[in-house]
Amino acid sequence: MFEEKHNIDTYNSMNQKQEILSMNNRFADRMKTTRKSFIREILKVTQQPEVISFAGGLPNPGFFPVEEIARASTKVLVEDGRNALQYSTTEGYLPLREFIAERYLRKSGLKIEPDEILITNGSQQGIDLIGKVFLNKADRVVIERPGYLGAIQAFSIFEPNFQSVPLLDDGIDTDLLEKTLSEDNAKLFYTVPNFQNPSGITYSGQKRKDLANILEKHNVVCVEDNAYVELRFSGEDLPSIRNYLDNTILLGSFSKIISPGLRIGWICAGKEIMEKLIVAKQAADLHSNYLSQRIVHQYLMDNDIDEHILKIRAAYRKRRDLMIDMMTEYFPKEVKYTKPEGGMFLWVTLPEKVSSLDLFELAVKENVAFVPGNAFYIDDGSRNNTLRLNFSNSDEEQIEEGIKRLARCLERLLF
Amino acid sequence: MFEEKHNIDTYNSMNQKQEILSMNNRFADRMKTTRKSFIREILKVTQQPEVISFAGGLPNPGFFPVEEIARASTKVLVEDGRNALQYSTTEGYLPLREFIAERYLRKSGLKIEPDEILITNGSQQGIDLIGKVFLNKADRVVIERPGYLGAIQAFSIFEPNFQSVPLLDDGIDTDLLEKTLSEDNAKLFYTVPNFQNPSGITYSGQKRKDLANILEKHNVVCVEDNAYVELRFSGEDLPSIRNYLDNTILLGSFSKIISPGLRIGWICAGKEIMEKLIVAKQAADLHSNYLSQRIVHQYLMDNDIDEHILKIRAAYRKRRDLMIDMMTEYFPKEVKYTKPEGGMFLWVTLPEKVSSLDLFELAVKENVAFVPGNAFYIDDGSRNNTLRLNFSNSDEEQIEEGIKRLARCLERLLF
Repeated sequence: MFEEKHNIDTYNSMNQKQEILSMNNRFADRMKTTRKSFIREILKVTQQPEVISFAGGLPNPGFFPVEEIARASTKVLVEDGRNALQYSTTEGYLPLREFIAERYLRKSGLKIEPDEILITNGSQQGIDLIGKVFLNKADRVVIERPGYLGAIQAFSIFEPNFQSVPLLDDGIDTDLLEKTLSEDNAKLFYTVPNFQNPSGITYSGQKRKDLANILEKHNVVCVEDNAYVELRFSGEDLPSIRNYLDNTILLGSFSKIISPGLRIGWICAGKEIMEKLIVAKQAADLHSNYLSQRIVHQYLMDNDIDEHILKIRAAYRKRRDLMIDMMTEYFPKEVKYTKPEGGMFLWVTLPEKVSSLDLFELAVKENVAFVPGNAFYIDDGSRNNTLRLNFSNSDEEQIEEGIKRLARCLERLLF
Repeated sequence: MFEEKHNIDTYNSMNQKQEILSMNNRFADRMKTTRKSFIREILKVTQQPEVISFAGGLPNPGFFPVEEIARASTKVLVEDGRNALQYSTTEGYLPLREFIAERYLRKSGLKIEPDEILITNGSQQGIDLIGKVFLNKADRVVIERPGYLGAIQAFSIFEPNFQSVPLLDDGIDTDLLEKTLSEDNAKLFYTVPNFQNPSGITYSGQKRKDLANILEKHNVVCVEDNAYVELRFSGEDLPSIRNYLDNTILLGSFSKIISPGLRIGWICAGKEIMEKLIVAKQAADLHSNYLSQRIVHQYLMDNDIDEHILKIRAAYRKRRDLMIDMMTEYFPKEVKYTKPEGGMFLWVTLPEKVSSLDLFELAVKENVAFVPGNAFYIDDGSRNNTLRLNFSNSDEEQIEEGIKRLARCLERLLF
């Protein structure tokens, strides 16, 4: 049939062939399962200045140490510019890795060698590299429900078989996790145990131990993403899952405590895994931005990062408190929400059968935005009664006005 | 059998099981085919200060615009620090993409929209993203022989079926390319048509046209890596393959003309491909270092990059000329080498049956280093009579002394 057509009308059939090839056959299978970020599309809608947005996941730029970074940058360039602008090692700047290792020891009692740390382009790249190193097509990855969208996207590239296990108030549902792992083994379990994105939930101390035991029993590697761990503003610091389970890969980041634009994060893993990660990192981009590594290190040498973190915590705590106070006062009492002990997000649950997509439609008309919860589920086709609110990136006036607007939308939707 | 052992000696068999899992079963198949960089291992040997190294692929740091970068950095941070340190778009800073698009038009007559440009972490990341977007396991990728090692490594992650086609003095052997593509179709052809790494070879104008025709006929996407294109110091600028073939993805980089440590490169591709690349880039690391994008753009606004490039060209030309003069004077006449019109490398061919690995052993004892040619072949097990010399990163004294030392080693090996 094609041959016939080809003989009759070469030009058209050539064009047709080109088009078929260019549309589908050309790209790798993995790109079919990878969806465009729903949040990214939402953010486009909400970028008008009149919109109060609780949708993004941005730290508050008011607390970026701009002057200190400028001083650090000048110092590095003046004192060692030719080295700072040259190619560097794949592993990353050794003094920066030493700083991170020393901080693990001081903050969490973890004995980490600098050689067990690899500097990445934010912790997002850490997830990509872990996916590369571990995942064959159809390998099982267990994630939290709801789960961090960036991790879902990064792992998706490697076409895994995702399983999600619900979060309870104190962390993962360990009974269901045990059941899921008993049915069929998994390679990786991915978790954000502190002030999770999107739910704001923090794992209890007991839950961390129980989780470690289950993963050890089933020989599953734990990927512990601690992007927000430094942003605790109530309650007590809790041990890392790594304290209980050697087979844990830690992800860390300076994005939430210094600056996300610098894209400096890290992976911390045992030597055998690290060797593979370094090969993957080298193939991916040779090494992370070296000037920025030097600037971050210089900043850390010349400033008290803990003091700076206290300022961020105080500011975010104030915003969380205000948002919760406003929700308590204005939201219908049928609407429930988490009260996170840190981080940048809280999680709202509407009455069953009320869709946050319907609320989103109303809200956009009122110039207030959030992320509907279905973005954080792997089976996102379903309508969903949850939503994520970011409180770090708004000022107090915006939080007051934004929550009032949302409350009006809720009244209309519920009654 | 395993069950029995498990009952008798649980501790040992558990350990054994853990070890088996940790050593092999755990990692993705793709990591088996990905080798550690041979060059990386060589560079470790050659980092002692007494070694004259022609092994690395470093631009000369003496020509990094350190003061100008420091001024640009200060300006960006003082004038717009809070934005420059925040998260940014996946595509990259629009004014920087506009600059690149405008330069394509001015230098190559190519009409490129800024939306067809994606900022990456050096052009290396561009190769990784192209691999992600196009390659299923066992898809065919055709590369040059010898070929750029970084591309071999980056594509290897996606487990393609590599085919290599020899380079002649004026570019790829088009007869063999035609034969290779007729036997079995390929998805990608990867080329460095200007001052190729490692051979220093530049495609002639005719060769570019012939290549484009062959790739069009077989519907193969051309990946044209122009990392060195600005470093021409003799002969005339030639059209891009993209001028002849729409289905060309261009890779570019500021690494060789401003600074590699900043890791700012780009991919230029048509909109349909670009849409997939952006999804892959977002999953990989959200976006490239934003402060560095802003610094590079500020530098480009406040300085004459073309004037700066002229300085680099003059310096590299001098080094190339000196290296060739020294080789002409001191090398045995049986030894042949390319005379590149630009870039950073030249390629030496020893008499047949003389192994550059044997030469390397002698050379290291004389404290002079290079990269044996087998690193640049996909079938690198074989002994090989070629080697790569870098001339950009040595000063004149080092080139004189280093070539004399190499000549002594050659004398010993050949006679």
